[in-house]
Amino acid sequence: MQGLPRAIFPAAAAGLATFLFAAPASAEVTAESQFVFNSFSFLIHGVLVMWMAAGFAMLESGLVRTKNTAMICLKNMALYSIAGLLYYLIGYNLMYVDVAGWIGSFSFLYNPSDAELALINADEATPEMVTAVTDNGYSVMSDWFFQMVFVATAASIVSGTLAERIKVWPFLVFVVVLTGFIYPIQGSWTWGAGWLSEMGFSDFAGSTIVHSVGGWAALTGAIILGARKGKYGPDGRVNAMPGANLPLATLGTFILWMGWFGFNGGSQLALGSALDVAAIAIVYVNTNLAAAAGVVAAMALTQILYKKIDLTMALNGAIAGLVSITAGPDLQNHLMAIIIGAIGGGLVVIAVPLLDKLKIDDVVGAISAHLVAGIWGTLAVGIFGGGDLVTQVIGIIAIGAFVVVASSVVWLLLKVTIGLRVDEEAEQLGLDKTELGMEAYPEFGTGAQSM
Amino acid sequence: MQGLPRAIFPAAAAGLATFLFAAPASAEVTAESQFVFNSFSFLIHGVLVMWMAAGFAMLESGLVRTKNTAMICLKNMALYSIAGLLYYLIGYNLMYVDVAGWIGSFSFLYNPSDAELALINADEATPEMVTAVTDNGYSVMSDWFFQMVFVATAASIVSGTLAERIKVWPFLVFVVVLTGFIYPIQGSWTWGAGWLSEMGFSDFAGSTIVHSVGGWAALTGAIILGARKGKYGPDGRVNAMPGANLPLATLGTFILWMGWFGFNGGSQLALGSALDVAAIAIVYVNTNLAAAAGVVAAMALTQILYKKIDLTMALNGAIAGLVSITAGPDLQNHLMAIIIGAIGGGLVVIAVPLLDKLKIDDVVGAISAHLVAGIWGTLAVGIFGGGDLVTQVIGIIAIGAFVVVASSVVWLLLKVTIGLRVDEEAEQLGLDKTELGMEAYPEFGTGAQSM
Amino acid sequence: MQGLPRAIFPAAAAGLATFLFAAPASAEVTAESQFVFNSFSFLIHGVLVMWMAAGFAMLESGLVRTKNTAMICLKNMALYSIAGLLYYLIGYNLMYVDVAGWIGSFSFLYNPSDAELALINADEATPEMVTAVTDNGYSVMSDWFFQMVFVATAASIVSGTLAERIKVWPFLVFVVVLTGFIYPIQGSWTWGAGWLSEMGFSDFAGSTIVHSVGGWAALTGAIILGARKGKYGPDGRVNAMPGANLPLATLGTFILWMGWFGFNGGSQLALGSALDVAAIAIVYVNTNLAAAAGVVAAMALTQILYKKIDLTMALNGAIAGLVSITAGPDLQNHLMAIIIGAIGGGLVVIAVPLLDKLKIDDVVGAISAHLVAGIWGTLAVGIFGGGDLVTQVIGIIAIGAFVVVASSVVWLLLKVTIGLRVDEEAEQLGLDKTELGMEAYPEFGTGAQSM
Repeated sequence: MQGLPRAIFPAAAAGLATFLFAAPASAEVTAESQFVFNSFSFLIHGVLVMWMAAGFAMLESGLVRTKNTAMICLKNMALYSIAGLLYYLIGYNLMYVDVAGWIGSFSFLYNPSDAELALINADEATPEMVTAVTDNGYSVMSDWFFQMVFVATAASIVSGTLAERIKVWPFLVFVVVLTGFIYPIQGSWTWGAGWLSEMGFSDFAGSTIVHSVGGWAALTGAIILGARKGKYGPDGRVNAMPGANLPLATLGTFILWMGWFGFNGGSQLALGSALDVAAIAIVYVNTNLAAAAGVVAAMALTQILYKKIDLTMALNGAIAGLVSITAGPDLQNHLMAIIIGAIGGGLVVIAVPLLDKLKIDDVVGAISAHLVAGIWGTLAVGIFGGGDLVTQVIGIIAIGAFVVVASSVVWLLLKVTIGLRVDEEAEQLGLDKTELGMEAYPEFGTGAQSM
Repeated sequence: MQGLPRAIFPAAAAGLATFLFAAPASAEVTAESQFVFNSFSFLIHGVLVMWMAAGFAMLESGLVRTKNTAMICLKNMALYSIAGLLYYLIGYNLMYVDVAGWIGSFSFLYNPSDAELALINADEATPEMVTAVTDNGYSVMSDWFFQMVFVATAASIVSGTLAERIKVWPFLVFVVVLTGFIYPIQGSWTWGAGWLSEMGFSDFAGSTIVHSVGGWAALTGAIILGARKGKYGPDGRVNAMPGANLPLATLGTFILWMGWFGFNGGSQLALGSALDVAAIAIVYVNTNLAAAAGVVAAMALTQILYKKIDLTMALNGAIAGLVSITAGPDLQNHLMAIIIGAIGGGLVVIAVPLLDKLKIDDVVGAISAHLVAGIWGTLAVGIFGGGDLVTQVIGIIAIGAFVVVASSVVWLLLKVTIGLRVDEEAEQLGLDKTELGMEAYPEFGTGAQSM
Repeated sequence: MQGLPRAIFPAAAAGLATFLFAAPASAEVTAESQFVFNSFSFLIHGVLVMWMAAGFAMLESGLVRTKNTAMICLKNMALYSIAGLLYYLIGYNLMYVDVAGWIGSFSFLYNPSDAELALINADEATPEMVTAVTDNGYSVMSDWFFQMVFVATAASIVSGTLAERIKVWPFLVFVVVLTGFIYPIQGSWTWGAGWLSEMGFSDFAGSTIVHSVGGWAALTGAIILGARKGKYGPDGRVNAMPGANLPLATLGTFILWMGWFGFNGGSQLALGSALDVAAIAIVYVNTNLAAAAGVVAAMALTQILYKKIDLTMALNGAIAGLVSITAGPDLQNHLMAIIIGAIGGGLVVIAVPLLDKLKIDDVVGAISAHLVAGIWGTLAVGIFGGGDLVTQVIGIIAIGAFVVVASSVVWLLLKVTIGLRVDEEAEQLGLDKTELGMEAYPEFGTGAQSM
């Protein structure tokens, strides 16, 4: 806009004419426009969340060692695929269809509504056909798409923690159960209008329902699977096993940050009114400020504690800030978002060495960034006035207990049947060579031998 | 949405007020809103397709050897640039303007409509001026942008197959002809309302028109150019020449997957009605399920055939699933999308070694993923009821024959004039050093010497 | 769209029904729809611009040497974070609130409007409440978000130039001042409706206001900081210090290109009318054509001058093309965009060695791509008829003088207090080891030792 105040609505110059010649008969969004806006919000925000799968893949590729890099790429590609298929086959129905308190419908597949198919296939649509579709507020498959990418996110959290030692097929079987059953069942309690929803549990975009769920599953797996050989010395020493490609980890974090605008923004679940889009804008701003505060807090804290900044802590600080704000990104005081994110970023710096003290081996820090910050973010909604603190605690405990128990059963069943862990020689050589027969970087350095 | 069923339209809580106080005079999308929606769909979906150029660049960067990596980066950046320029200078007109059966207008440049320019430049717009613009349904340059990124995709397919041995300038000359002439001419037959369109050939987003076209051009080039030195031993042995950076190849595949929502979703060519957005949602879901099924099928098949999963096959399985669904992503039975994608993913696992048997050297597997799966996807529309199978076969053959003949002429002309292939020493040393005088990873390993 | 002309509005097949049964009472976009469109444009285009932060991070990661790679990742993550926080705390108000000629309001924080909060918190919204919100044309926080990602872009430009020798904390202090004060103050002159705006200075999306500002700050820093040890030999020889990871640099450039559609497209500042979306489409097309022309021009010129194409020059050609068109991407003759971009791409090829002649050490070429091309693009608006050339020159000089003086003061203050530059041993060992205590690629090659 040439020569015009940029922050002032340019209608004066460009769009004003539209207003001048005819006052619209009604000023509100029409029902059909609202339907288009809402559905499109699910779709485009869903694409951003889908993109987070690539973010996790890059973050984890950067934080594992070269000898396990191709495998972590494969797991991330496979888990995103499996999550989508399972959520279509069974998961979505369990989570959203005919939820009776604590579980939805055990039915298969999920398809467009009859009203939508009738409209799409009509030779000539009637107003009644359009109304039958728009009455739902959004297209049913756009909602399916948006919910599907969320279940994939939960699964993505698990792969990083368990990297460098878990066998590929047992891991993928766990993903089947997590995305087909565990995630949808607990998800139905709140987002499917089940018992936690009735209690008033508040988790806007899933600090608990997505991130802690992934974190609990990862934690359970890490305990049952055990640490990588050599990670913890007999004398209590923690051996660093540094990630092989930090620019990729940085890229992954930026991707996650970008995707989070879809994750939190799309969770407004509507776009087609002034109220909704204004609320989404508030969500975007809080999401960005919390992540920024997480980075700065993690940097400052590592500088104070260790006299040096740590890049991977800064990256996890960003993620922790994002996870922290996810339960309540709709708060109307942006300063609070900065505080919540900063505390999340600080928690990561404390949680990572604490887990190492407990000899819980989390290759990428996902338990700290997703579980710890997820709990914090959910509590913060109670503390900062977006919900009842006791109810928030009940939700955190109930979901945590269910996921821990269910995951443990699956992990243990896998352990005693097909086995969970590669043998010691394979772990030493790296999963890329032993499980895939390939190398991620065949021409670079001598990773597998030297580390 | 705190304490509310997440999958249920939140109007009850948030947006309902909007409905309460005034029933809109009409419930439908207005003509101008529809124009905005449709044009914005072209733009934002077009950005996603543009992003696929980066996906191809990363996929190919990851699958070539280090000594040819800078060159493949350059080719990808250059081909996207050339495609845009040529499509502006001549291609779009050949494809869409005054198409007479099998070719459009030989005219130069393409510009906004007079109606749009009149509106934009008016001191005060009249309703008539707005109507003159909105009557077109979408802004003409938004459509140009969306069509342009498609031609770039076709060109991207070619670069990977021919990597590691083709000279840069002859390759770029081929891109000029492909994007300025070959692609637009065959594109006019269907999408430009030419003879194939009149026959009823059905290719929603371009399994044939984009992906097979790129694949045919790549196949022709691979045959005329010949295999890389040492790829095929005299005893029939196929020497693996593994890609140097598999996380980048994984990233590239995720980028392509993300971009494909724009590729297929935007090909609905409209967004501004309940019908259109519901149809786009169906397209998104099918696109995702087919890709997921392609991954799982490729993984399962490699496990069965070779007792190991192959990461690059899983990646190509995703791409093949995506290509397969591209001719008919609007099918209303999502289970069929899974089947179509799974078959596509399986085809890649079979086609890659088959091409090696024929000593056709395809560095990245693009012929298998784009040409073979593209044919399959186009046939699937006939098989699963979205079109006539015979017509589909005619379209596949006609377009294939035209592209093979036209490409061969260009490749052969280049071969006998400026030459297509670098000399043997340059191939040994790598194109980065000999053609660019630089290294992609100057500090890593000793790629060029050792491989 | 099966069997239909693809470039022709598919209403005939799909959406026509919508038109048939009821002519809308009014054909125009309603005020509330317009509000949603405009706000959503800020948000989604803002996400694309946010993504440019990742683009700069990857570009710079690829162009520094391995021993400084983790540090440049950290700086990019940190500067994006700091830019957002500072712009929230102070910057936005300085730039846009109560601007009196040459500076805005010294007030803290920026929050949703009372009207928006009233609507969001109402139990039952009244039409008056909706009107009070929609009268503003867009949601205030959506605009904040869009403006915030611009200030981050300006800061991103600085980090690359000064890489490999500047201390991290002083650099971040500079970012605080740049994003909290320097950028917003000069921004208020034009986009905040200050004195340059009143003069008619024209800079659509910020060739000068964003890119040259970053470039001037980088240039000032590069002069005060001095060149890297060994970059310029005593005999006038310039030693190449090649970037360590060119595929990442290529990825970064593609990310920037993608993000630029948000940068330029969103700068229309409105979406909700036929006029606005048609104008945005023109902006997209010009943006793409200028970048493409920049690539081709840089390739051709390096081929002519040096007999070889240079990948990094091609990448910088793309960026220079983008920067060049940023001051006037709304021009209605697309051929001019090609010319402007080509000249920008050519300027980079000339400016990079020129700066080296002057012993100004710009690690990534940012001064050439952002400052030189930014000046050119701003002049081009005057030359090609979008503004007055003298006014353009005044704007370029005024903003340049202010940024040079203000930056110099900050750089010099930092130099004499906490110091700007790492010591010689640290520079030799690399900033990753000495400032962060980590390596970006611990398993690859022997970067830090050998270079």
